[in-house]
Amino acid sequence: MSTALALKYSQAHRQRFLAELKEFVRFPTISAQPQNAQAIRECAAWLANHLGRIGMKHVRVIPTGGHPVIYADHCRFSSRFSGKPESDVQPPDPPRPTLLIYGHYDVQPVDPVSEWRSAPFEPTVRGDDLYGRGACDDKGQMFTHVKAIESYLQAQGDLPVNVKCLFEGEEEIGSPNLIPFVVRNQRELAADAAVASDTRMLGPSRPGISYAERGSLNLEVEVRGPKHDLHSGNFGGAVHNPLQALCEIVAKLHDTHGRIAVPHFYDRVRKWHVEERGRMFETGPSDEDILREAGIAQGWGEVGYTLYERTTVRPSLAVAGLVGGYQGPGVKRVIPARALAKVNLRLVPDQDPREIDLLFRRYIARVTPRTVRSTVRTHSHAKPVLMNPAHPAMQAAAFAYRRGFGAPPVFLRSGGTIPVVSAFQEVLRVPTVLMGFALPDDRIHAPNERFHLPNFYNGITTSLWFLAAMGALTHPELQPGTEGVGSMAYGD
Amino acid sequence: MSTALALKYSQAHRQRFLAELKEFVRFPTISAQPQNAQAIRECAAWLANHLGRIGMKHVRVIPTGGHPVIYADHCRFSSRFSGKPESDVQPPDPPRPTLLIYGHYDVQPVDPVSEWRSAPFEPTVRGDDLYGRGACDDKGQMFTHVKAIESYLQAQGDLPVNVKCLFEGEEEIGSPNLIPFVVRNQRELAADAAVASDTRMLGPSRPGISYAERGSLNLEVEVRGPKHDLHSGNFGGAVHNPLQALCEIVAKLHDTHGRIAVPHFYDRVRKWHVEERGRMFETGPSDEDILREAGIAQGWGEVGYTLYERTTVRPSLAVAGLVGGYQGPGVKRVIPARALAKVNLRLVPDQDPREIDLLFRRYIARVTPRTVRSTVRTHSHAKPVLMNPAHPAMQAAAFAYRRGFGAPPVFLRSGGTIPVVSAFQEVLRVPTVLMGFALPDDRIHAPNERFHLPNFYNGITTSLWFLAAMGALTHPELQPGTEGVGSMAYGD
Repeated sequence: MSTALALKYSQAHRQRFLAELKEFVRFPTISAQPQNAQAIRECAAWLANHLGRIGMKHVRVIPTGGHPVIYADHCRFSSRFSGKPESDVQPPDPPRPTLLIYGHYDVQPVDPVSEWRSAPFEPTVRGDDLYGRGACDDKGQMFTHVKAIESYLQAQGDLPVNVKCLFEGEEEIGSPNLIPFVVRNQRELAADAAVASDTRMLGPSRPGISYAERGSLNLEVEVRGPKHDLHSGNFGGAVHNPLQALCEIVAKLHDTHGRIAVPHFYDRVRKWHVEERGRMFETGPSDEDILREAGIAQGWGEVGYTLYERTTVRPSLAVAGLVGGYQGPGVKRVIPARALAKVNLRLVPDQDPREIDLLFRRYIARVTPRTVRSTVRTHSHAKPVLMNPAHPAMQAAAFAYRRGFGAPPVFLRSGGTIPVVSAFQEVLRVPTVLMGFALPDDRIHAPNERFHLPNFYNGITTSLWFLAAMGALTHPELQPGTEGVGSMAYGD
Repeated sequence: MSTALALKYSQAHRQRFLAELKEFVRFPTISAQPQNAQAIRECAAWLANHLGRIGMKHVRVIPTGGHPVIYADHCRFSSRFSGKPESDVQPPDPPRPTLLIYGHYDVQPVDPVSEWRSAPFEPTVRGDDLYGRGACDDKGQMFTHVKAIESYLQAQGDLPVNVKCLFEGEEEIGSPNLIPFVVRNQRELAADAAVASDTRMLGPSRPGISYAERGSLNLEVEVRGPKHDLHSGNFGGAVHNPLQALCEIVAKLHDTHGRIAVPHFYDRVRKWHVEERGRMFETGPSDEDILREAGIAQGWGEVGYTLYERTTVRPSLAVAGLVGGYQGPGVKRVIPARALAKVNLRLVPDQDPREIDLLFRRYIARVTPRTVRSTVRTHSHAKPVLMNPAHPAMQAAAFAYRRGFGAPPVFLRSGGTIPVVSAFQEVLRVPTVLMGFALPDDRIHAPNERFHLPNFYNGITTSLWFLAAMGALTHPELQPGTEGVGSMAYGD
């Protein structure tokens, strides 16, 4: 199949593609906030409808314990998705490779909302960028694949490769329902490789493919003291303030060398060979790049590692939020009854989130002063993942980037976490090509998130070429090195 | 003048008095929050109108740079209040003592609002208590005097003593405009003593008069890092998280002995003679009392002092609020760009709030890591005060309490701060009788604030007898020991 007609179609419809993306961004799909459940359902229905309109088959909105999953496929001999294992599923014949395309339509919260130049759910183009929550993470990036699929189906009536789409609404809360869903439906989701566009490039003309993601562990630490808030005049000096006690606990989470102070935390952290560290140093962002992106003058963290290493091959711990006492303007003279910290840990091979969770809880119990009580709650966790850059699907993606962006990609480690990638690796036994189209300054998770529109259009072109290149692969070619971690040539 | 008719009147109208207090509590007069400015103006107008209706003269709502001050008086030879010094003001003749009654109609914020059993501004009687924000602090307590005045004026047509009422709307934010107002209008406000009911008793039948208040210094510490919030995956480990840095700073505000770690902080703290400490031990609440009131099992703070001493003659520092990062439900994986702590210091003789402010700023600058920037902002400050329990106005109050509550009051130190009391002492050169009617478990500043209704009614009776006793005093009797701190018999 030639990609020429599909490419022409995709170029001719750019304005409509942008208008549709704006429609998609307009849904306030903040998965963490219960009041958005209706908007999430509406967005899921919109997306499913959209997939049907562009020609995808077997489109389904599948309820979960949380927000719905959307499935659709387009296979030469389609194995109809049933929601439960079927023994009579047909394997693709002739053996055309199958690609699983993953994305998420949920987004991060928008606060502090006062810092947005335009409202987060009123997508607005300024210059070459589309501003809005989710414009980049991940509605815009996943939409590149949707539009590439449309271009093939509308221009040529078929796709060069079997495609299964799996779009979820809970990535930003740790994919609590998608991972069991993948386990339950592993036969229906069987594929040769997966692709997810939810990561970063190094710059507008510097594409990158992430071959590693950190794991994640999201916890809450609550400290409780008096049974209700107390007047700080009447009781100040005689009561251990839970907010102060929590600050004292948080201050003990790192040692003076920027290392996480939880005992045995680093026991399983993999040591990298000098060769791999050298390769990272050559290909990855420099300290200066990272400082500039972060908008800070001075780095911080574990001594003996570059900033790129600290954010990828070394674990980290961030207090992502702290709730306690009076939050409004002016003053309130109070000793709050409780305080709560939201803690986000990033884990690396070979740390196990469940083991780290236990170590963290044991440490918090140990450093909690006897004058207050503490509780730790676990929100979500995901294992770190590592893929082989030599896998044919990775190489197909490299080829596609050269066509889409005019430059070969560098293989990068990402410090982020896409929870389902570890499930794809462990359950479906396929690598996930992390084909990022985000720029370092796209402000994902922050106010004024944006998507660089040239990346949207080049991303569609890249996806078109990726589908073509995947279609040109044969099954035997797709077998080697699919298992990730264990088979890494240069991990030790 | 006999108090019999006034007492009878006050007993006959209790139900109406309660209904009026509920009307008063219904105004959401949170002075810290700009959106309540209109409610505050409406409440000021309501209160002024009420004072006029009960027979007070020269009622005025006086605009300030913030929320209005309300003035009214009733003097045998009235010195009309003009808002600026007048040379032709008539001294009271015959020389009847003048009492300045202070109160505040503003209230504390209501959050966490979910913990209120009934809405904070829908005053509700449950059992013997009136629940609502301000029911006790200070609308209910100040209203005891308003109703005592009404009882005299309506039942007998006159008061036993000259009275000036000064009610403000900014006490809970540190009285920023009232103190300059007192300085500007000291001739019009001239009096022999002041009274304020905004403090606590020891229990329902254990009245107390506060003869000391701690000073107050309200500050904000802001820590800034990256120019905007960062994704905790992409940057976690390479950036000093401002929220973590702020926790580290807060953890350094106390040493391991519960003392405030700011250098030279204790240099001017007055050491008390063993005789005074013994008196405090005998008359004040025990450690057990304070633990029970606070609802905690274990005390905390500066070693070597009782909990009563720690909350009265020793300074304290409370982090009253901390704002940073994601506050909503669930998780947001972010490194916030900034974090802010609200700090409330309580000061004791002979600490100077301005000097402490400087010491605090110097210390914060010193303990701020070089990887972030910090700023300190001062909201308000008030000096500590100390009055002489032997002053005739104090003794008149003691007499009144015996009549109102059937028990003599103990003279107590209060850990709280009523900023204007130091201005009355320094500018008007009069002591303030801190005639508290609040109970230790009235939850002032906290959810489910309440006022014990027997204390409301006994408070009115006490105020009636206090006005009578003050009226029986002569000017020479009121001269000794009015200057507080310097003339304390047992301070050293």
